[in-house]
Amino acid sequence: MSREVNLSVIGQYVDYLVLKQGVRKVFVNGTTGESVSLSVEERKQLVEEWCQKGKGKLEEVIVHVGCSSLKDCQELARHAVKAGADGIAVISPSFFKPPNAAALRMFLQEVAAVAPALPFYYYHIPSMTGVHLLASDVLEGIDEMIPSFRGLKFSGSDLLDFGQCISCNPGHWTYLYGMDEQLLAALAMGADGAVGSTYNYMGSTVNRLLAALDKGDLAQARTLQFQMQEIILFAMKNGFSLAMNKQMMCELSGLPLGPPRLPLLPCDVAKAQAVAQKLHSALGHQ
Amino acid sequence: MSREVNLSVIGQYVDYLVLKQGVRKVFVNGTTGESVSLSVEERKQLVEEWCQKGKGKLEEVIVHVGCSSLKDCQELARHAVKAGADGIAVISPSFFKPPNAAALRMFLQEVAAVAPALPFYYYHIPSMTGVHLLASDVLEGIDEMIPSFRGLKFSGSDLLDFGQCISCNPGHWTYLYGMDEQLLAALAMGADGAVGSTYNYMGSTVNRLLAALDKGDLAQARTLQFQMQEIILFAMKNGFSLAMNKQMMCELSGLPLGPPRLPLLPCDVAKAQAVAQKLHSALGHQ
Amino acid sequence: MSREVNLSVIGQYVDYLVLKQGVRKVFVNGTTGESVSLSVEERKQLVEEWCQKGKGKLEEVIVHVGCSSLKDCQELARHAVKAGADGIAVISPSFFKPPNAAALRMFLQEVAAVAPALPFYYYHIPSMTGVHLLASDVLEGIDEMIPSFRGLKFSGSDLLDFGQCISCNPGHWTYLYGMDEQLLAALAMGADGAVGSTYNYMGSTVNRLLAALDKGDLAQARTLQFQMQEIILFAMKNGFSLAMNKQMMCELSGLPLGPPRLPLLPCDVAKAQAVAQKLHSALGHQ
Amino acid sequence: MSREVNLSVIGQYVDYLVLKQGVRKVFVNGTTGESVSLSVEERKQLVEEWCQKGKGKLEEVIVHVGCSSLKDCQELARHAVKAGADGIAVISPSFFKPPNAAALRMFLQEVAAVAPALPFYYYHIPSMTGVHLLASDVLEGIDEMIPSFRGLKFSGSDLLDFGQCISCNPGHWTYLYGMDEQLLAALAMGADGAVGSTYNYMGSTVNRLLAALDKGDLAQARTLQFQMQEIILFAMKNGFSLAMNKQMMCELSGLPLGPPRLPLLPCDVAKAQAVAQKLHSALGHQ
Repeated sequence: MSREVNLSVIGQYVDYLVLKQGVRKVFVNGTTGESVSLSVEERKQLVEEWCQKGKGKLEEVIVHVGCSSLKDCQELARHAVKAGADGIAVISPSFFKPPNAAALRMFLQEVAAVAPALPFYYYHIPSMTGVHLLASDVLEGIDEMIPSFRGLKFSGSDLLDFGQCISCNPGHWTYLYGMDEQLLAALAMGADGAVGSTYNYMGSTVNRLLAALDKGDLAQARTLQFQMQEIILFAMKNGFSLAMNKQMMCELSGLPLGPPRLPLLPCDVAKAQAVAQKLHSALGHQ
Repeated sequence: MSREVNLSVIGQYVDYLVLKQGVRKVFVNGTTGESVSLSVEERKQLVEEWCQKGKGKLEEVIVHVGCSSLKDCQELARHAVKAGADGIAVISPSFFKPPNAAALRMFLQEVAAVAPALPFYYYHIPSMTGVHLLASDVLEGIDEMIPSFRGLKFSGSDLLDFGQCISCNPGHWTYLYGMDEQLLAALAMGADGAVGSTYNYMGSTVNRLLAALDKGDLAQARTLQFQMQEIILFAMKNGFSLAMNKQMMCELSGLPLGPPRLPLLPCDVAKAQAVAQKLHSALGHQ
Repeated sequence: MSREVNLSVIGQYVDYLVLKQGVRKVFVNGTTGESVSLSVEERKQLVEEWCQKGKGKLEEVIVHVGCSSLKDCQELARHAVKAGADGIAVISPSFFKPPNAAALRMFLQEVAAVAPALPFYYYHIPSMTGVHLLASDVLEGIDEMIPSFRGLKFSGSDLLDFGQCISCNPGHWTYLYGMDEQLLAALAMGADGAVGSTYNYMGSTVNRLLAALDKGDLAQARTLQFQMQEIILFAMKNGFSLAMNKQMMCELSGLPLGPPRLPLLPCDVAKAQAVAQKLHSALGHQ
Repeated sequence: MSREVNLSVIGQYVDYLVLKQGVRKVFVNGTTGESVSLSVEERKQLVEEWCQKGKGKLEEVIVHVGCSSLKDCQELARHAVKAGADGIAVISPSFFKPPNAAALRMFLQEVAAVAPALPFYYYHIPSMTGVHLLASDVLEGIDEMIPSFRGLKFSGSDLLDFGQCISCNPGHWTYLYGMDEQLLAALAMGADGAVGSTYNYMGSTVNRLLAALDKGDLAQARTLQFQMQEIILFAMKNGFSLAMNKQMMCELSGLPLGPPRLPLLPCDVAKAQAVAQKLHSALGHQ
């Protein structure tokens, strides 16, 4: 059971996302990608592969370059430029936690400064980082410190904070939401789009949800959100985790994505299959 | 500085809610009402006063009868019937926490059983109780155990759970949402209405928000929600608390509601006034 | 399965504690006694029974009178005097949490003031109350506000806080420790004694631990503590809870103590028996 | 204000620890050393410098090689061998959390396997990692998986868990305790020694505490522990942090250790000086 990075599957991965899920924008080396379990070198290789294989197929490749070491973040940001990424995103360091929003903003600034031409996004995910600073506080004055700042990926449940990010900042920034199970709520609050681990295999569903809302059909959007919730809640009751998400993607896409790397353990295949089955019955197709 | 219950102000309180805020349904002895700081006798007196003074003015008086002792809950439920309440609601006990959803459902059942003709609501507020059972699990099969069950007040941020409560249960139940700062999100998910501490003085604003959404004007609803958020976030940064909420109500309504009871301390008046000022500037009126 | 209070067993309970466990000081209506699940009237009956049946047998009956309503606390404090208790203890209210140490101190003061002749103890148990104020802050200046103050029961893991309670306050106060699994650590820090749920059936063991330490035999005290830890850890891995503790007491004492009251559920008997068996094998006797 | 690693001060640092504090065993690249804020290359340089400058002066140099990437851990472990370290220690990954004790044990095993001749320690610090697995569970069967396993550094407050680590494992392993403010409690439970951030400047005090306990003088040990507690509690009330600890070390040792690296911010100098002053008054010397 190899836990080495399998670059050779990425071409098929791109095709699957584009052709089967209608997903044309990707977020590379994020949480689902187990980025901080990789070495700097491995992360670079992944970025190069995604940028190359995505050429002409993907509309946007955002590269997450965050980790606990500022110098490594900077090295990854410089590399993202060379690799041809369309943007970079940075998470808060989490072992040593920034003592306040200003400290995190300074950290982000020092990363952004080495890649000033690349659109920059703050990736807010307090459940993983344990950093409970308000994103709206982090964003205060950030456009002056980071001229390349373009928006945030918000993976939190505090929709007061999310709403204030949108309400108090430029309308041309992008506000992406990352808790798949309550996307509709964030869209009502003003989210522009969605980034999430389950969209690997529910991308087409979320695209239908977004389309329904665009047409003003809230009832249909809600029906789709409820279906997604039913699947995710079932997964949670079976121990939803990154490992299970990866195994579900293997089951549903047929791609040989392999096991996660330690400290994660592979998901029990039977459990992932049960959730995949639930997905089929809830969505009535795929 | 008296901390005794002031029954004499309730008549004016009813009038203020109805005439100034357009609020015609009340939730008596809930969290804002500091119910569990009161004796059983005091809670009864309050219920009687609200029912009497509300007659012909209020459309609905829901009485919260929850506390840590099942016997006291039952006594309060029986009393609510006699007092003429329109429904009762019960929170989870929180010092001793139910070990699972079934235990909480049994607790609710034993309360409901002594007032079988009164509409019964489960009041879900994990941030106060520390009970993190899913409301959707608590509701599973509850209609068979509690024939008078009619819905829930959901004061939590987990909109997956809230969505599943709505999706998996009868459409004629009532799904009320209790986090004022993100009501719009819950409405998108299917909430029927709102119960919240800030509606004491922002009731007319929330009524406008609900009306906007009813007309399909999401942009206007969002604008109002953002205004409410701005006020609430400002309050939070000034130490928002039950005590502050009460003092703001004094400032904004002019009613002599008095200080909270120990273990709470009165709010610094200057802080409450600063938040009231923020409210005036954000809402541009009142 | 009755969940009514069974007063008739208390006489035998006293005898068991005194004769089998060597326990002569009791803490009535505390956490183990499910006090806040009872009505005020039931709590009074229990106090009367313990005081009466303990006469001439028990050295000290401390009555816990804490709950969420200050008025109920006061009523119970007045009653404890009449019933002949040797002291009263009060926990922090937990649904509405005191905003700071001064607020909690004022709450305690108002309870103590109605029973000024009874020794008064503060009962610190943050894991149950969710109130994370430092006990050492609560004790600051408390002797001036509560002349009857005599000490605290500390059921927390923060031994910096516990140490500072002891270091900064009168030596004649009593410092009791309430986490049975790490009593030895607290004794090293200066604790005077122990109050804990497992001493219902491990009272004789803890008495041997205390005696070993009194003789300066740290090695023997540690051996006994490790045995107690082995039992408690085994219990935890089997879902240790108040309900299990009660069932274990039934198994080990033979007393018909009955099930807990809702919202707690009875413990699976087989699990309690497995833990009781572990106790026999770890302690090699009883 | 440079945030680059200052290798040139390490020689003086060694001398200060040995000559002024009587500290002859060091833990390099741990929490206090901000290890995970550094690049792999910087961590290697620090290890080389400590090993070289410590030669003939320090008795033991333990190198912490933990981080979120297994491959980086392995690279650092291999390097520690070459640099002449006396042992290595590994923390649990914390962004992606091991799902159970077996997963963490496997992670540790894969690190230890590349440096099989170096004594290996598990570093348990749940407050920083958010990984709340019991250390005693992690240690179960670890000697068979990691023949070089020699003990643990336990920086947690759960002394049941710590006691069971000691009680259930070989007596020749080393059990070090890492919460300076309650070391005495852990020593009573069987700890062999102490590793902690405040020993940079309170090393001589903790050495006196250990000596007192060795002589059986519990009262003197307690007095010293209470003095240390008084200082640490004062520091906490002034916002104790890694940054403050570093600034206090600058103040007390006179060494130019510089500011911490982002995401940490430098400590307000006046605050660190106030705590240093408290230390002088509490310890009555230095």
